[in-house]
Amino acid sequence: MIIELERGRQATLDQIRDLAVRFGNRVELSEGTGVYDTVHIIGDSREFASRESYILGLPGVRAAWQPTGGYKNIARVVRGNEGKALHRERRVVEVKGLDGKARRFGGGNGKHIFVCGPDSPQTLEQTLATARMAREVGEKFGILDRVMLRGGAFKPRTRPTDWRGLGMKGIAIMDAAREETGLPYVTEVMDHNLVEQIGAHADMLQIGTRNAQNFDLLESVGRFGKPVILKRGFGNEAEEWFYSAEYIANQGNLDIVLCERGMKTLYTKGGYCRNQPDLNACTHARKQTILPIIFDPSHVAGDHRIVAENLMAACGHLVDGSITETVHTEAWRREQLCDAGQALVMDQYSILVEAVLEYENHVAPKMKSILRMLGTD
Amino acid sequence: MIIELERGRQATLDQIRDLAVRFGNRVELSEGTGVYDTVHIIGDSREFASRESYILGLPGVRAAWQPTGGYKNIARVVRGNEGKALHRERRVVEVKGLDGKARRFGGGNGKHIFVCGPDSPQTLEQTLATARMAREVGEKFGILDRVMLRGGAFKPRTRPTDWRGLGMKGIAIMDAAREETGLPYVTEVMDHNLVEQIGAHADMLQIGTRNAQNFDLLESVGRFGKPVILKRGFGNEAEEWFYSAEYIANQGNLDIVLCERGMKTLYTKGGYCRNQPDLNACTHARKQTILPIIFDPSHVAGDHRIVAENLMAACGHLVDGSITETVHTEAWRREQLCDAGQALVMDQYSILVEAVLEYENHVAPKMKSILRMLGTD
Amino acid sequence: MIIELERGRQATLDQIRDLAVRFGNRVELSEGTGVYDTVHIIGDSREFASRESYILGLPGVRAAWQPTGGYKNIARVVRGNEGKALHRERRVVEVKGLDGKARRFGGGNGKHIFVCGPDSPQTLEQTLATARMAREVGEKFGILDRVMLRGGAFKPRTRPTDWRGLGMKGIAIMDAAREETGLPYVTEVMDHNLVEQIGAHADMLQIGTRNAQNFDLLESVGRFGKPVILKRGFGNEAEEWFYSAEYIANQGNLDIVLCERGMKTLYTKGGYCRNQPDLNACTHARKQTILPIIFDPSHVAGDHRIVAENLMAACGHLVDGSITETVHTEAWRREQLCDAGQALVMDQYSILVEAVLEYENHVAPKMKSILRMLGTD
Amino acid sequence: MIIELERGRQATLDQIRDLAVRFGNRVELSEGTGVYDTVHIIGDSREFASRESYILGLPGVRAAWQPTGGYKNIARVVRGNEGKALHRERRVVEVKGLDGKARRFGGGNGKHIFVCGPDSPQTLEQTLATARMAREVGEKFGILDRVMLRGGAFKPRTRPTDWRGLGMKGIAIMDAAREETGLPYVTEVMDHNLVEQIGAHADMLQIGTRNAQNFDLLESVGRFGKPVILKRGFGNEAEEWFYSAEYIANQGNLDIVLCERGMKTLYTKGGYCRNQPDLNACTHARKQTILPIIFDPSHVAGDHRIVAENLMAACGHLVDGSITETVHTEAWRREQLCDAGQALVMDQYSILVEAVLEYENHVAPKMKSILRMLGTD
Repeated sequence: MIIELERGRQATLDQIRDLAVRFGNRVELSEGTGVYDTVHIIGDSREFASRESYILGLPGVRAAWQPTGGYKNIARVVRGNEGKALHRERRVVEVKGLDGKARRFGGGNGKHIFVCGPDSPQTLEQTLATARMAREVGEKFGILDRVMLRGGAFKPRTRPTDWRGLGMKGIAIMDAAREETGLPYVTEVMDHNLVEQIGAHADMLQIGTRNAQNFDLLESVGRFGKPVILKRGFGNEAEEWFYSAEYIANQGNLDIVLCERGMKTLYTKGGYCRNQPDLNACTHARKQTILPIIFDPSHVAGDHRIVAENLMAACGHLVDGSITETVHTEAWRREQLCDAGQALVMDQYSILVEAVLEYENHVAPKMKSILRMLGTD
Repeated sequence: MIIELERGRQATLDQIRDLAVRFGNRVELSEGTGVYDTVHIIGDSREFASRESYILGLPGVRAAWQPTGGYKNIARVVRGNEGKALHRERRVVEVKGLDGKARRFGGGNGKHIFVCGPDSPQTLEQTLATARMAREVGEKFGILDRVMLRGGAFKPRTRPTDWRGLGMKGIAIMDAAREETGLPYVTEVMDHNLVEQIGAHADMLQIGTRNAQNFDLLESVGRFGKPVILKRGFGNEAEEWFYSAEYIANQGNLDIVLCERGMKTLYTKGGYCRNQPDLNACTHARKQTILPIIFDPSHVAGDHRIVAENLMAACGHLVDGSITETVHTEAWRREQLCDAGQALVMDQYSILVEAVLEYENHVAPKMKSILRMLGTD
Repeated sequence: MIIELERGRQATLDQIRDLAVRFGNRVELSEGTGVYDTVHIIGDSREFASRESYILGLPGVRAAWQPTGGYKNIARVVRGNEGKALHRERRVVEVKGLDGKARRFGGGNGKHIFVCGPDSPQTLEQTLATARMAREVGEKFGILDRVMLRGGAFKPRTRPTDWRGLGMKGIAIMDAAREETGLPYVTEVMDHNLVEQIGAHADMLQIGTRNAQNFDLLESVGRFGKPVILKRGFGNEAEEWFYSAEYIANQGNLDIVLCERGMKTLYTKGGYCRNQPDLNACTHARKQTILPIIFDPSHVAGDHRIVAENLMAACGHLVDGSITETVHTEAWRREQLCDAGQALVMDQYSILVEAVLEYENHVAPKMKSILRMLGTD
Repeated sequence: MIIELERGRQATLDQIRDLAVRFGNRVELSEGTGVYDTVHIIGDSREFASRESYILGLPGVRAAWQPTGGYKNIARVVRGNEGKALHRERRVVEVKGLDGKARRFGGGNGKHIFVCGPDSPQTLEQTLATARMAREVGEKFGILDRVMLRGGAFKPRTRPTDWRGLGMKGIAIMDAAREETGLPYVTEVMDHNLVEQIGAHADMLQIGTRNAQNFDLLESVGRFGKPVILKRGFGNEAEEWFYSAEYIANQGNLDIVLCERGMKTLYTKGGYCRNQPDLNACTHARKQTILPIIFDPSHVAGDHRIVAENLMAACGHLVDGSITETVHTEAWRREQLCDAGQALVMDQYSILVEAVLEYENHVAPKMKSILRMLGTD
């Protein structure tokens, strides 16, 4: 830990030293060029750092700073032999379908995984129609092993009177869609009591933005062990997001896919998009963690007419996949009870998939050669 | 619902009209002065409005707007006789202590309720010492019926390796503090499975900022029926906060105290406070809802040295009370495992209580006469 | 103008009606479904709307709303014949070089313009070297008519003691770079007294983020008439940016190129990028205005190692060009006095240009066919 | 300067050392407990630190950090004898009226200065009426030496078609108001060419939020030497605000009054206030600088009905004064062309002044004794 202290604050320095000694550390002082000195706590300072807010409250202390990140289970750079920095291998998260194919998120292979489907299944007919079209898209481009389904049966809603999904009936519909198409599916779980019940059906669980710091749920999903998509909380800084992933990883489950879904900022006031995507956080996640990162253009946009731009923008940051709301035809849009305006019609989605594949083939290799030159690949 | 539509978009207008007819509404068009017209949906348009995002996606639609708020259980202004606006009476939330006195939050009585105590009980000795001093402060100023305790036994922590409180042992310590002093206490509940178990002990429950949109928990607390402090989620707009309260109220529990605890903004970057208080949201809540509003200066500040300024600032917005972290002596601060730096020592807190009482006596009456002139009291 | 008014507020309604009559408007009332009615001001309500804040202060008024945008000189959708909405043609902004070629920004032609060069010219040698390499990149890919130079001789600096550029000596260096390469250049002007002096040399002027609402400067550049790049102020909403452009346009100069350069948000706290790009504002500008939009990945990133990702992300939003800081070799980076860390070395920039061209050829056509289907092209 | 570097990055360390040697510094390395080491640059590292962005771009560098603030002319804590931290005396900014009395801002005397008057003078009659009432308020409470006038003759407006004030005719009206009442006045200057012309009349100049980083204007006002109110730019962090003050101070003018006027945040979306006040920045300014700090409740609120709450909140942070828009009667409000809704009627303002004085007498002494105990007075 590093502490910035006003010069001449002997009493505070003594208190810091006492505390350091108590935790087996020693203190070194470097004189600054201005009126602040820098106090180093030498040795393993984690226990010492747990008193951070006490230290910050001492007279003359301007700042205190713990250099090392604490999300060690998912960190990309860790302490290796003789204390040297080591870059760990990236994690590949696999989700197998009934068709026997594994969807492989991440690992730096540059293969975008396409998760699509309705916001929430309302009828069997509608869900099957969308699922079949998802399968067709996969077949058309020869990427069936990169397509999977999404659909929320349990919906978090800001207003208590809004529709909250079909519950276990919705799960049954998703099961039927999987049966019919062979595609695996992901669905949201909001209550840690339901992790086992929903998890017995779904191929992958999702933790939504409002539950990104519901720690009981995170640990429950961590213990359960199935692959999970962790959305970033819309008020969370990147570090807080990584710590939420660490909650899952800490229980032994490393099959975590991070998902950026847009942040609240003042610049969305004009109403031209619902949330402001923080794409640099995706790149940051790629550098700081071993986990795959995907992007949700639908919740960023809140309007299907800007979903395409947002997904292509995310490709610029080399995300490992996307999760996009789709409906099979324009006619179905008006029947949808939740987030209808942000769902893309499947034939538009199909062209968007093609655009991503073109990107992979023609643009991504150039990008990667730049990143290699920069040492940030 | 009101829709702003580009002139000459006949097809869209027809689609809107079809939908309106289907839900028993009719459509009226007002020509704007520019290139947009305004489409009115006449009649009870709630069902129609549930298709908002579909409508927003139609060609030529620039905006859609539903004038009425949806949190009717807690709203201050409601639809009265012949559709006229009616101002409901403010809600008084009562919490009784073993001393037989009721702490009465809100109702526009201008009497600040002082909730104080440790962030989390760590030892019986320390908690009792703080509780006794809280009682002394109440006695000293003759406001024992306005003092109560706080203390978190279950702590939400961003990092999985941080200390998470004593659990039910912490609850037992709080019970002992109540036994000793007669003061009632509030404590946080994070898991809806534990509402009954914790609620059997505590006099008041608290829902923390990270769970402000944990809807299962909100409904569970709503069903349980005990008074509850609802902190605003740190990424939540005021309306979202009110809707979270509505989740509780919808289950029949109106004993809700809203608590502002600071928002994340970019202006806290410099590190001079942890969160930026949104005091105008307190005034907004006073106008929009019947619920009492209190303020948490400790989590706003993140540093005990600016707690006093922040609490007095909130008094400018006529809040109904405050919840402040306190420790009994400076020496105990360094023993604290969580948020030590933000806890105020009791003898400083005592002067702060005095300052609030002076404010009530000398300043608040002037404020109220201005608000009466403005019709905003 | 549309006003939302609590039902039963007759006195306020009378005041609104009086004001309307005074400005030659009439009032129409639509009953809402809740407790608010909607008051329409019929006729040309611009004068009436200038009293907006008076109206908002009347008892019972919840909101007032003027449907039409006010930046009519640059608006894409305007009031046409019989009041119908008309889509104007997009503006092409031309900047000619000594090489006789015109760089054409915008117009929906899909040809990205590449503006590059040092943050600020420090020596003739260094600037010429970078300029020559810019020319080589243009020749290599056969896009010389899409390359131009940038370089700031007058630098706005947050701290008064920081280096502020070479002034007119820097302009002379940029002149020399143009002489040598034939490429036109853009440079920043901060003082409206210097518009004519700098404008006599430069091919295009730039208004920086700190001066985005320096209205004297905007009008001065508007009167001068040369093409101008208008950066968005880092605290400005999209509408404010458009109004700043309208200040220039209002003086008869429509040769304006809008430039997004990143916003301050709380999510940049972690330090993983300097500013958060608001790419959806680029798409919004494309829909709301006729002006070309370019992107500045260097000031967004604040770090050359994430410039490539950010530029490719902007391509997802189909921007018309970019302005990127470049240095010719790694060795020169450490000599730079301002923003050294964000400048990309020319051989990396060259691959990035290639990536953009690949994007234009392979990905953009797919994007455009989606946008055509959606009617947002 | 302090640099955080991944362990084992010898090449980067060598580059840092080379640079340090070149600027007369030396390097010391402290091993961290994780995978990052800390590199100290010893000696006067200001020149070295000017290469910050180069350093941040080196492989393995995670962060670089310069401990000392750079706004030395206005800093409260400076480097004293033998390098010890010294607290400088607070600055008192005096503005004399024709009545021979000096309005004294700051210095820690706890006497609130009340600046009031119309947003902008429109007619002589209206301005005189408001000015006379301001004088009456001063006389009524025996604080004539704490009252002064405000009025903007040159108005910055987001939209080019909005009314921009009367210009020099408005200045003549303010002169007449001063002549009649003896009260000095402050007025905004936007163009550095007009500093001398306006400054020849006004008793104090104001730099508005949109010009907070118009460096030519700052330096021009600095050279001119009259007292100045410097509003914080609405997108500026506290440090950037202090640096803007430093621009003025650097030219030899220390008669600067800082003014907080509200920030843009996402939480103002609901429309319940125009800007979110950052009151903790006022407290931060009190600790970091010697300058007086005042508060503008009118531009924060954007609605006269919440001006009182906001001003009293600022008193909680012990600001040295306020600048409030007032009109003399309700009837005049509707005539006002700019910001009518935020102006408080004088008889309401009079009660508000009384509330502030009650605060000074009864509450502030308690606050000060807490701050003395904490060492933050």
